[in-house]
Formats: sequence, C-alpha cells, structure tokens
Amino acid sequence: NEKLNEIAWMQSHVVRAPLASLMGLIHLLKDEEHSAEEKEEILDKMLISANELDLVIREITNSADTTEYSIDS
Amino acid sequence: NEKLNEIAWMQSHVVRAPLASLMGLIHLLKDEEHSAEEKEEILDKMLISANELDLVIREITNSADTTEYSIDS
Repeated sequence: NEKLNEIAWMQSHVVRAPLASLMGLIHLLKDEEHSAEEKEEILDKMLISANELDLVIREITNSADTTEYSIDS
Repeated sequence: NEKLNEIAWMQSHVVRAPLASLMGLIHLLKDEEHSAEEKEEILDKMLISANELDLVIREITNSADTTEYSIDS
C-alpha cells in the first residue's frame, strides 16, 4: 500500500509539472504583449507541455489497464 | 478489479477531455490570426480547461490518498 501511495504521489507530481508549465505559459500570453515570434515560441512550448501531459496520462492509464488492483478499504 | 478498471477508464476520459480542448485551443491560436478580443477569449478558455484539468488531477490524487489499494499481480 505504501508503495502504491508512493506511485500515486509521484504520478501526481509528474502530471502537475507540465500542467503548471502550461498554466504559466497561458498567463504569459495573457498578461503581456509579445511579438509574433515570441508568441510562436510560447505556443510551441505550450504544445510541448500539452503533449507531455498527454503522454503521462496515457502511461498512467496503460499501467492501470495492465496492473490488477483490489480495493482494501 | 473490473470496477477499478472502469474507474481508471472513466478517469482517463475525464482527464483527456479538458486536455483535448486545451490542445485544440493552442492550435487555434497558432494557425490563425485573431483580433485581440478573440485572442483573449481563447486564452480564457485555455485557462478554464487548464483549471479543470488541475481539479480532475487533484481529485484523482486525493482519492488515491484516501483509498487503500493492494496490487494483486
């Protein structure tokens, strides 16, 4: 159980990192004026974070599919 | 186990919905020219999706903390 809680804790941080990055980038675009180049760069970084998030969520879903769990309480 | 797989499947869809929305909005900003108002609107929608995603991930993490699991295989 401790091991699984550890995995859950780790996953929540692995998921939260690209999400926090995404949110920061959205605020960056919202709060300041940017040149077309800067805008492009920020949007590219957003896509990278979103793809990372997608990958992490896929991995979690896959491991849930392949591992069998039972609920103790 | 079936029940838990069902939860995992559901969660992956609940998480993927705002993520898909976010990715669509990023592409929208990237691929087209927008007025300042449109841009603002898209960015606000992005923030809503990002917050939704954050909330969903928090809920999943919380339920992992309060429910005890053991690994069967």
